Amino acid sequence: MYDLAVLGGGPSGLTAAVYAARKKINLVLVSNDIGGQVLSTSGIENYMGFQFIGGSELIDKFEEQVKRFPIETRRGQAVKRVSTDNGNFDIETTSGEHINTKTVIVATGKRPRMLNVDGEERLRGRGVTYCAICDGPVFSGEKVAVVGGGNSALEAADDMTKIAEHVSLISTTQLTGDQVLIDRVSTAANLTMFLEYEVVRIGGEKRVEGITIRELKTRNEMEFEIGAVFIEIGLIPNSDIVAGVVELNGLGEIQVNHCNETGVPGLFAAGDVTDVPEKQIVVAAGEGAKAALQAHKYLQRL
Amino acid sequence: MYDLAVLGGGPSGLTAAVYAARKKINLVLVSNDIGGQVLSTSGIENYMGFQFIGGSELIDKFEEQVKRFPIETRRGQAVKRVSTDNGNFDIETTSGEHINTKTVIVATGKRPRMLNVDGEERLRGRGVTYCAICDGPVFSGEKVAVVGGGNSALEAADDMTKIAEHVSLISTTQLTGDQVLIDRVSTAANLTMFLEYEVVRIGGEKRVEGITIRELKTRNEMEFEIGAVFIEIGLIPNSDIVAGVVELNGLGEIQVNHCNETGVPGLFAAGDVTDVPEKQIVVAAGEGAKAALQAHKYLQRL
Repeated sequence: MYDLAVLGGGPSGLTAAVYAARKKINLVLVSNDIGGQVLSTSGIENYMGFQFIGGSELIDKFEEQVKRFPIETRRGQAVKRVSTDNGNFDIETTSGEHINTKTVIVATGKRPRMLNVDGEERLRGRGVTYCAICDGPVFSGEKVAVVGGGNSALEAADDMTKIAEHVSLISTTQLTGDQVLIDRVSTAANLTMFLEYEVVRIGGEKRVEGITIRELKTRNEMEFEIGAVFIEIGLIPNSDIVAGVVELNGLGEIQVNHCNETGVPGLFAAGDVTDVPEKQIVVAAGEGAKAALQAHKYLQRL
Repeated sequence: MYDLAVLGGGPSGLTAAVYAARKKINLVLVSNDIGGQVLSTSGIENYMGFQFIGGSELIDKFEEQVKRFPIETRRGQAVKRVSTDNGNFDIETTSGEHINTKTVIVATGKRPRMLNVDGEERLRGRGVTYCAICDGPVFSGEKVAVVGGGNSALEAADDMTKIAEHVSLISTTQLTGDQVLIDRVSTAANLTMFLEYEVVRIGGEKRVEGITIRELKTRNEMEFEIGAVFIEIGLIPNSDIVAGVVELNGLGEIQVNHCNETGVPGLFAAGDVTDVPEKQIVVAAGEGAKAALQAHKYLQRL
């Protein structure tokens, strides 16, 4: 029986683990990977303390902090289900293990949303990608498309203008990201914007060869050649593991109060999986710290 | 008329300023100092990304990030009062200036709580201090007292055992800080704990010469010689400037929801001044980012 299980190894989970370990809580950290979405983030300019740092470089620093404590870790295991169990919790992992714990912090983050268009599934990993930073360099010198209008899409587009021959930025809406990024992308000589366009299909036999898009207003379709599509249209919360146990909002996010409590005593949530609307590293870290300190108080009262 | 006034220059206010500037919000930062309580923090081990960093060193990095943007700053000015003004806000500073703004982020933090005992006020700055890191080195080689039982007191006591001849740690309760700190302090050879003791008076003519304490259980008093008293018994929120405008809790903290909204549209709060119970740098930074992004959304909807 653990005092605390931290589910997720992104900024929120790692921060929660450090804060819990500093309180000498007997905890287990369960995560498929260490780093979460930060691993697919290129340069970070808005994590306070660093003018600029790479995603994996920042995660290395977080991990180094975790490793200063004797924290038990189940790495390479995803969580299948969290159940309440007589005031405690039962965590079932994908490898069939059951972990019993008095408190839980769900910090499982989000995963990329799919376009759900023809060709997307079939050509995934063959030019269809959800991580520009991971896969971008492979397509240097090619024509590529970036789908989306938010910060992730703008960052992907900005990155790709520097290495691709040409970038088509396709968004169903006007651009919604940070103005600094919009300005940067708008002035790129090798970028064409298709705003208020949707993707109809992704074409190609063994790899992506082209894309068909449609203007929302006129319903006019157009098709052009590309070698890769970077899909950056948002994220889905990894909250399925607690569906039916805690309250989710319409987006599937876990509802928390300002102290990271859910409606279930002993079950806390932090980071991108929650209904805190800002998906930022510094926010996730702060929320993870809050959740760990709340779990500590809860354990003290038991 | 500004779009946003950020009140406070601690981790929360500085992070809010950076996030707002990235959104190209027309903002003004009003603060007496840059750094807030972090300036009186010695080593920081729990701000993610740094295994160890000094308080002023971390604030330098935060400030450097702020300076990358053309942010208007009123430094060396405290805020006297925030009033609502026809859907906007009027900020009156101590120098008599009035700043008009559409939104406000109150990130004014906290200030040290006083003991309110005889001699405290009279000997303030003459051995009575609220900042061990600022004033500790002055009392190297002397006998000192630290008052309090939480993390700040334990950190102060730990720091002072390394440079003072002897440290008396006086707390009305058992120790409540992190176990790692309790362990460290408990094993110091030159420290004596007086748990469940209160301070009766601080003695001395022109500077602190002694202290009188009383055991709560027995009411027995004892007096001994010291050259300094470090008072670390908690903090009072700097929320007076919005008293009557927003809802405060019993501790005088501004009540916020998980999005840093107060009950007043356009008025947000972040960091130690709020009822988020965790007073941590990474939490304050995260909350500042959240408040700025919420203010941005609010401005977009105007």
